[in-house]
Amino acid sequence: MQELIRKANQQAMENLQKARPTLMGIGVALKDIPNMDKKTILHAGPPIKWENMSGPLKGAVIGGLIYEGLASNEEEATKLAASGEIKFDSCHHHQTVGPMAGVVTASMPVWIIQNKAFDNYAYCTLNEGLGKVLRYGAFSEEVITRLKWMENTLAPVLKAAVKLRGPIDLKSMIAQVVQMGDEGHNRNKAGTSLFIREIAPYVVLTDFSNEAKSEVLKFMHSNDHFFLNLTMPAAKSTMDPVGNIPHSTLIYTMARNGTEFGIRVSGLGDQWFSAPAEIIDGLFFPGYTKEDANPDIGDSVITETSGIGGFAMATAPAIVQFVGGTPQDAINFTTSMYEITEQENDAYKMPTMNFRGTPTGIELQKVIETQILPIINTGIAHKDAGVGQVGAGLVRPPMKCFEDALEAFVTQMAKEGLLE
Amino acid sequence: MQELIRKANQQAMENLQKARPTLMGIGVALKDIPNMDKKTILHAGPPIKWENMSGPLKGAVIGGLIYEGLASNEEEATKLAASGEIKFDSCHHHQTVGPMAGVVTASMPVWIIQNKAFDNYAYCTLNEGLGKVLRYGAFSEEVITRLKWMENTLAPVLKAAVKLRGPIDLKSMIAQVVQMGDEGHNRNKAGTSLFIREIAPYVVLTDFSNEAKSEVLKFMHSNDHFFLNLTMPAAKSTMDPVGNIPHSTLIYTMARNGTEFGIRVSGLGDQWFSAPAEIIDGLFFPGYTKEDANPDIGDSVITETSGIGGFAMATAPAIVQFVGGTPQDAINFTTSMYEITEQENDAYKMPTMNFRGTPTGIELQKVIETQILPIINTGIAHKDAGVGQVGAGLVRPPMKCFEDALEAFVTQMAKEGLLE
Repeated sequence: MQELIRKANQQAMENLQKARPTLMGIGVALKDIPNMDKKTILHAGPPIKWENMSGPLKGAVIGGLIYEGLASNEEEATKLAASGEIKFDSCHHHQTVGPMAGVVTASMPVWIIQNKAFDNYAYCTLNEGLGKVLRYGAFSEEVITRLKWMENTLAPVLKAAVKLRGPIDLKSMIAQVVQMGDEGHNRNKAGTSLFIREIAPYVVLTDFSNEAKSEVLKFMHSNDHFFLNLTMPAAKSTMDPVGNIPHSTLIYTMARNGTEFGIRVSGLGDQWFSAPAEIIDGLFFPGYTKEDANPDIGDSVITETSGIGGFAMATAPAIVQFVGGTPQDAINFTTSMYEITEQENDAYKMPTMNFRGTPTGIELQKVIETQILPIINTGIAHKDAGVGQVGAGLVRPPMKCFEDALEAFVTQMAKEGLLE
Repeated sequence: MQELIRKANQQAMENLQKARPTLMGIGVALKDIPNMDKKTILHAGPPIKWENMSGPLKGAVIGGLIYEGLASNEEEATKLAASGEIKFDSCHHHQTVGPMAGVVTASMPVWIIQNKAFDNYAYCTLNEGLGKVLRYGAFSEEVITRLKWMENTLAPVLKAAVKLRGPIDLKSMIAQVVQMGDEGHNRNKAGTSLFIREIAPYVVLTDFSNEAKSEVLKFMHSNDHFFLNLTMPAAKSTMDPVGNIPHSTLIYTMARNGTEFGIRVSGLGDQWFSAPAEIIDGLFFPGYTKEDANPDIGDSVITETSGIGGFAMATAPAIVQFVGGTPQDAINFTTSMYEITEQENDAYKMPTMNFRGTPTGIELQKVIETQILPIINTGIAHKDAGVGQVGAGLVRPPMKCFEDALEAFVTQMAKEGLLE
């Protein structure tokens, strides 16, 4: 059995390392995301019903319904969301990922990423910036106005610019940012900078007004997390071909909906193994404490799943100013992740680790054997709808996800008559 | 005497740490640089006569004369340069610094930097990019054409953009790049990226054609050293108020003209202490070896003088791929520089060194006592005029500069009756 698993994981890792995530353009959720319709709302994490959603996810759904014109205020939106008329589904079921609440509605513009090695696609909304934003569950007028501006100005300008520029190799760009102090999840300053310098010459050449072009460049410049929404679908497009390989124990999805943390195992197909999400240990913005924090939320943990984020913390020592700890902790976190992963990343090399590749490919049995859980860098949302971000920190998945997955894996192997 | 020196150095360090280098705009050498005229050519390093100049400096002078229309080819330029009609002088005598050959002629556009803490100014040409460039001694038609484009397109567009943007705080920007894998001398990728994202929204708003604006953004994007020519005058404007403090043993200038390495000591005013420049130990481009290398050249060592560059190598472990060595060497180099410097930098903090400030303020007596020479990251020019860059590496100044300076300092103290 272990030989079968070894070979399956070898194949899974080959697929992972071969990935060539590439930015192809910008589309619209309704038109480009598979099986999307006007009354579907996608969200982060494993599937969840309206009544079980946490505050920030409910807040983002309310904002999404108002943005789509399906409701005109919080009350109407809440009623509609609870009515059964709206279909809620995981982003991950639609080749999509979303940071924090991860809410995607029909009219939202989305990045289109193609993994050139396997021709599969992944999608993600554009990053809204800091402060009061939908992904943290805020839905005030300011939030909706910004989403409309993103739909009507930001996306059209960038879409035209990417078209003039041609496809952008995100694997190469992420490899560079990992040498510039980003870990690709909670520090995206280098990535945002590299993306701006790459696209700015083509923004200039589009047919929009100088004012619109300048606004777009300022918007990206004002938000060091702008690149996160490119890293995430790059990671998603990398991990999808790692899934559904019979007998592989590789984790190809980790995601949280704000209530539960869910994982998926390659050899167990589309099945989720979920457990209550943890509270994040981190640094809080002035005026907030752990009491205000929602449990762990968002699809952004796809970065860790693919070998960056918390797994690459050693290369981003400055991140500790944002999530807490010391630069030595950052090195220790990365070092410990080698114990639960299959390989060192071929492309993402860390200068501070003597150019060692990041720990890549979480293996289910190793997690159980070592009892070491993946480490995740993440933002912290307020537990109530409408508030927003209150901090950032470190978190791990519940061990139960991995225990249940291993049990299911063993059961599956027994069914196939493969238990030794 | 030591108490007098201690107090003088304390004052010098206060001036250094207080510096607020700020980008104010773009001017023209003839108009903005003090005591500049049409037949003056500024160069890197201590003063030097035409007949003593090395190949790359001669090449750059030839290129400068052709660019100015004072000669139409190499032969004419060489004749004119040797005629005595052209006045050669150190950039440093004109509040200016130049990378490598450092040649500045009357028509060249220059960055205008103001140290807001002391109201002093510094100037530097704009970086030409990689490959065949004047600063490495190339003077072919391609080089001259690019210089004209810089004069007629690059500088006017950026000048207008900086005017719309307003002054840019370079100290804050350098503090950021030091947390993004740049050491500010031989790795300027983060700096170039931050500058582009800062200025791009204003490039868009200028009145130039979209084609010109796009060309300017592409030109900066194509050259990761673009920011070096901003870091250098930032450092120069920082160090000038450190000079000319009676009894201070702080080194406020280090510079090389390709033949000699020169230093200046605060308490000894404008006097240079020079000795033959060393050959650089480094990595060579394919097809070149140490035999091809010119001795150490350029004013860019003003970065190390001010506490970055080689002194901040620990924060830029990826630099070792360019200059040779291992990330541990980088940490060791930085660590050893604390032994010859007065303080840790207040603004430039290194995450890899647990946010310790960079070693800042080279003190003459410490260099002699420890026999540790400053470590410098630098490019390597071919020894012949017209060739260009052949590699990059590490170098140190000749010990003789420091020995002669200490002797002069002691003599000076004796004259003042201050020897104990």
